[in-house]
Amino acid sequence: MPAQTPRHDGRAADQLREVRLTRNWLDHAEGSVLVEFGRTRVLCAASFTAGVPRWLKGRGTGWVTAEYEMLPRSTNTRSDRESRRGRVGGRTHEISRLVGRSLRAVIDTSALGENTVVLDCDVLQADGGTRTAAITGAWVALADAVADARAKGLIAAGAQPLTGSIAAVSVGLVDGRPVLDLDYPEDSGAQTDMNVVMTGDGRFVEVQGTAEGEPFDRAVLGDLLDLATAGCAELTRLQQAALDAHARERLG
Amino acid sequence: MPAQTPRHDGRAADQLREVRLTRNWLDHAEGSVLVEFGRTRVLCAASFTAGVPRWLKGRGTGWVTAEYEMLPRSTNTRSDRESRRGRVGGRTHEISRLVGRSLRAVIDTSALGENTVVLDCDVLQADGGTRTAAITGAWVALADAVADARAKGLIAAGAQPLTGSIAAVSVGLVDGRPVLDLDYPEDSGAQTDMNVVMTGDGRFVEVQGTAEGEPFDRAVLGDLLDLATAGCAELTRLQQAALDAHARERLG
Amino acid sequence: MPAQTPRHDGRAADQLREVRLTRNWLDHAEGSVLVEFGRTRVLCAASFTAGVPRWLKGRGTGWVTAEYEMLPRSTNTRSDRESRRGRVGGRTHEISRLVGRSLRAVIDTSALGENTVVLDCDVLQADGGTRTAAITGAWVALADAVADARAKGLIAAGAQPLTGSIAAVSVGLVDGRPVLDLDYPEDSGAQTDMNVVMTGDGRFVEVQGTAEGEPFDRAVLGDLLDLATAGCAELTRLQQAALDAHARERLG
Amino acid sequence: MPAQTPRHDGRAADQLREVRLTRNWLDHAEGSVLVEFGRTRVLCAASFTAGVPRWLKGRGTGWVTAEYEMLPRSTNTRSDRESRRGRVGGRTHEISRLVGRSLRAVIDTSALGENTVVLDCDVLQADGGTRTAAITGAWVALADAVADARAKGLIAAGAQPLTGSIAAVSVGLVDGRPVLDLDYPEDSGAQTDMNVVMTGDGRFVEVQGTAEGEPFDRAVLGDLLDLATAGCAELTRLQQAALDAHARERLG
Amino acid sequence: MPAQTPRHDGRAADQLREVRLTRNWLDHAEGSVLVEFGRTRVLCAASFTAGVPRWLKGRGTGWVTAEYEMLPRSTNTRSDRESRRGRVGGRTHEISRLVGRSLRAVIDTSALGENTVVLDCDVLQADGGTRTAAITGAWVALADAVADARAKGLIAAGAQPLTGSIAAVSVGLVDGRPVLDLDYPEDSGAQTDMNVVMTGDGRFVEVQGTAEGEPFDRAVLGDLLDLATAGCAELTRLQQAALDAHARERLG
Amino acid sequence: MPAQTPRHDGRAADQLREVRLTRNWLDHAEGSVLVEFGRTRVLCAASFTAGVPRWLKGRGTGWVTAEYEMLPRSTNTRSDRESRRGRVGGRTHEISRLVGRSLRAVIDTSALGENTVVLDCDVLQADGGTRTAAITGAWVALADAVADARAKGLIAAGAQPLTGSIAAVSVGLVDGRPVLDLDYPEDSGAQTDMNVVMTGDGRFVEVQGTAEGEPFDRAVLGDLLDLATAGCAELTRLQQAALDAHARERLG
Repeated sequence: MPAQTPRHDGRAADQLREVRLTRNWLDHAEGSVLVEFGRTRVLCAASFTAGVPRWLKGRGTGWVTAEYEMLPRSTNTRSDRESRRGRVGGRTHEISRLVGRSLRAVIDTSALGENTVVLDCDVLQADGGTRTAAITGAWVALADAVADARAKGLIAAGAQPLTGSIAAVSVGLVDGRPVLDLDYPEDSGAQTDMNVVMTGDGRFVEVQGTAEGEPFDRAVLGDLLDLATAGCAELTRLQQAALDAHARERLG
Repeated sequence: MPAQTPRHDGRAADQLREVRLTRNWLDHAEGSVLVEFGRTRVLCAASFTAGVPRWLKGRGTGWVTAEYEMLPRSTNTRSDRESRRGRVGGRTHEISRLVGRSLRAVIDTSALGENTVVLDCDVLQADGGTRTAAITGAWVALADAVADARAKGLIAAGAQPLTGSIAAVSVGLVDGRPVLDLDYPEDSGAQTDMNVVMTGDGRFVEVQGTAEGEPFDRAVLGDLLDLATAGCAELTRLQQAALDAHARERLG
Repeated sequence: MPAQTPRHDGRAADQLREVRLTRNWLDHAEGSVLVEFGRTRVLCAASFTAGVPRWLKGRGTGWVTAEYEMLPRSTNTRSDRESRRGRVGGRTHEISRLVGRSLRAVIDTSALGENTVVLDCDVLQADGGTRTAAITGAWVALADAVADARAKGLIAAGAQPLTGSIAAVSVGLVDGRPVLDLDYPEDSGAQTDMNVVMTGDGRFVEVQGTAEGEPFDRAVLGDLLDLATAGCAELTRLQQAALDAHARERLG
Repeated sequence: MPAQTPRHDGRAADQLREVRLTRNWLDHAEGSVLVEFGRTRVLCAASFTAGVPRWLKGRGTGWVTAEYEMLPRSTNTRSDRESRRGRVGGRTHEISRLVGRSLRAVIDTSALGENTVVLDCDVLQADGGTRTAAITGAWVALADAVADARAKGLIAAGAQPLTGSIAAVSVGLVDGRPVLDLDYPEDSGAQTDMNVVMTGDGRFVEVQGTAEGEPFDRAVLGDLLDLATAGCAELTRLQQAALDAHARERLG
Repeated sequence: MPAQTPRHDGRAADQLREVRLTRNWLDHAEGSVLVEFGRTRVLCAASFTAGVPRWLKGRGTGWVTAEYEMLPRSTNTRSDRESRRGRVGGRTHEISRLVGRSLRAVIDTSALGENTVVLDCDVLQADGGTRTAAITGAWVALADAVADARAKGLIAAGAQPLTGSIAAVSVGLVDGRPVLDLDYPEDSGAQTDMNVVMTGDGRFVEVQGTAEGEPFDRAVLGDLLDLATAGCAELTRLQQAALDAHARERLG
Repeated sequence: MPAQTPRHDGRAADQLREVRLTRNWLDHAEGSVLVEFGRTRVLCAASFTAGVPRWLKGRGTGWVTAEYEMLPRSTNTRSDRESRRGRVGGRTHEISRLVGRSLRAVIDTSALGENTVVLDCDVLQADGGTRTAAITGAWVALADAVADARAKGLIAAGAQPLTGSIAAVSVGLVDGRPVLDLDYPEDSGAQTDMNVVMTGDGRFVEVQGTAEGEPFDRAVLGDLLDLATAGCAELTRLQQAALDAHARERLG
């Protein structure tokens, strides 16, 4: 397919869907963001609590973890609830671990003190890229929760638990062409699918590429990483804008 | 407390919180409503599918059921996910059963044919009255799902599976005074707490009254039922307005 | 149906089934009652133990809770065991919570001290009204367990943890007529079914009414509450007689 | 200890506790027996249903299985319910399997046709020997269920699914002396504990001996088997008497 | 069948399969043995850890327990994993309990101090007799773990936690003839199947006999015990040889 | 660290541990391999069965899936069994899914017909790289199972379900230097850890890179992929040699 042909929804190959980050969507959580990548909609809530899991006690360091789950009718056809089935599925486990691990890459647990932040990422509507939206939104919620804890004096005054920012995006080979931020129809038909988590300064935290159809070669891998790098940079700008907007509101 | 003293949030004793019913909040579900009773926010999704559970097969009748669940950070402090604990808690079971039973009171399962509607009521934010908000919103989502099924020819042309409307509200004795639609601070301190589900024509579907503190007498019971009757009538008007608004949009 | 027509088992509309309360049916439990409402047969065991659940520790107050369960062949056709299914069903959870909540309405947890009483209500045979029989019998077992604890010096000498008595009965609209204490055939065909828990002095602890068929109006609700009030008063007399009988035996 | 010294409850070494077999204790079950070995009290219910588990379908043979469980307060101190823990314990599994296997030793599954009998053995009160009481009572309940099925024409007229009878008893070495039918205090202190299941004609179905303290030798094993053989013979007579009594009642 | 007819694999009636005990099959475990009874292959790992389960704390005594499990394809046709089914099966529980109980018969828990040894017996390949192979191998692994703990000073210098040795073997009636150490084809067709656990000095720890087909009489029981006694004596010699061999290696 | 400094176990940066592939380690499985990467030891069993999961029925295509699990004492300190905890952990789920997905990349499910191959990968001993060893060994077991099915006529004569080979290896940044095939001590201290699954013709099936410490840049990613590419090529040669050896044995 010629590179200039528009995608099924009119986007260019290197174009993100419309991304929205709505902060403070919840009243109770220390940080909360409704993140939208097009029709994909994930509610990210950051809960800051004193104390750490038992296996970490007494070390003076904190913990950040995440739980991802999809509402039963977030998808096109309804899925059974994992709570009713009595067990958490493999995909849910896998993505929860990915989100938590990604966020910990930019956390200085010593600066956090013996506190825990849990990031709940609940997919209200799914249209591809839910895990990357979750990571991108969760980081903003985490930043808000850390700021809130500092404002309340729950962490030391000069402590900087957040050592940087992270954002995530999916890339893939669709109809033989590398594209950015796949929606569900693209994702279903992709030959190769890759999720990339990057820091705000352009380094990799996670690279997970999977050949859904044909195995892929080094050149394709390079093209996909180029797209992801540009996409994450754009998401980083949107995260900063969301955080700045709010700061302006408070000041204004 | 004198009847005219305003409540902690300024409401009169017989006043509902601000109620909002946002239809079509989801793209995939056959019916969906984001219902808000003040800060309580419940996402109701109606999933219409062909077929019925095994124990109903071959009778020519349909089935309506519901599942209620709270997001972990819908509440003031985070709760563990029931999916992670591997079992659904008693309160969740109890409310899920209440919502389903209430909706079935206005369903003609023969007119529905061998189809199933599942109502997923996920509490995004909790501030008291989540079960009554869920019932009130779920009925609107159910009405939309039935209309959608009729439009698609999935139920017989002249069939009227919906025999009426239902709405629900909580009432209680707070500081010795009967009040309508308790929020969380009121609910926590109520001596008596009652959830009432009524049809649009003013009859009872469910009455569940509990003495949290002192047992209550017949006179208090009467006062609470009066309040609930008026509250449900108002909710019925809001449900109809929400359904009409949409009809106008479609026509306009 | 004319009010004077006898019911399918010959009872008058306002007549209880034969009720039997056999105390000390078990040798180990601090209190135990085999309660029978006609063919419904529930074994209630009260276990008094020092200490309270973790979330109550250090407050100087006690705890009363209940667990209800049906034996697999208590019913007409065998049901699977909940232990084998690996999860407790919604109905079981719901009734367990109702029994515990009802008993706590007449418990002064401060007077109980940091002790726990668990009421196990196991349905040996079911013929309608198992939850109301369980509550009625469990209160007697609880009274015995409290007396036993006082005799053993496990609670303070002058402490009165039991602030009153409770009894429970079902009422319903069967063939258009309000009747008391429904057995299984009546319960299956009832248009409206209500469980009422009352204190010995005639006040309400729980009122749970459900329209199984047609929604019901305020007048029917009133009639049902009248029947329940009289029925609970009679059950209160039977509870006191059972407790007195035993006292006499001990004295005699 | 001299052989003639009475046991702690006054019994001779080769004496059973008082055994009672109360048939038809339940109204719904096809066969039911409340069996008592002294203070040990087990409710055995036999449920006869058409059909067999999937792995047996189409072979023309039936199935007999058993489930054993203890009520939480059957014991001296309360145990948690297995349904609440979400899993069945090893001891419960082990005894359930033993009861089912024992009963199948006297069942001709071809004569049973494609029908299933489930024996539910619920321990209402435990004072040692619950598994042997369960087997002894369950066989009587099974005999009644088979008779009931024949009376209803659910099994072929001339079919004899029951090829014999079984009974079970515990024996053990207590204070160095072999004794029959141990109660809980004896069982707790036994050096060796053995459960023996035998047919009515004196052959072995199961022999399970365990050295709780010192390993035992061949002579002790012989003494214990002698005691068990006599004990099972006596139980067989009691089972037959219970079945005959009923027959007389029906005729009388 | 004449006693002299060879068995289907050529063995004499009183002949064990080839038995191999390979010590130190694992690098991490404090004791480990790959035990083979012909094609049956069980990996036994002994894990020695400081501390005891909560219910034993503060008594100065240790604990020995075991867990037995089969790999899904250890058998002729694949079985589902118990971890995936979310529950441990009855047979697995039963055998785990047997292995643990048997080993505790030769453990002086006071001499062990407040330490725990867990024996993991994982069946890599099953061809009959897996539980008896597990016990026989686990004892050697336990002996190694105790020796290792003594060498590391984790138990008192003069303490002798191991009071003797145990070995186990199956016997059964196959084609009417008592035989030793049944493989899977023999086990499947046996009329009677018995597992016997004995100490190195020839006393019984467990005797578990089951009539798979016809009930058995006292004479058969005697023959089977004779075979088992000889078989366990031979296994005891092989265990000692395995332990000695290693000692020689260390010295040599 | 200078590139020429040997690793803690003496290996060069681009050197695999000693790899052994022992085929037919089990007697029952259609294919089985004990794969060793140094001290890491994984038993891979391929079970070929007729039929497919329900959701695939009637399409004429087959299914390949995998289950990975660690024995409790495969690791340095004992872990609880997932079967006892009643749930499969996230890591286990994640790796099981990876192994299955990787193998399906070289399977033509149409050529397989309506048959299922399950690959059980049980880690007997863990020393880093268990998932890559599992994939590498499982492919050989799968190849053997396919050959066995063809020999037995269970798949069509000319069908080629296997479209290629796959192998997997881990690479990582240890002490700032890219190295191949990390053992446990290296893995624990790695800044970046990557698992790469490749086809025999040098294309990528999976690339999973994680920054355990510092995020990594594109250059490091390139170096790691170079190492992995060479490592997988060497593993491919070893797989072919193992398959050829066996063929020779059969012919020889």
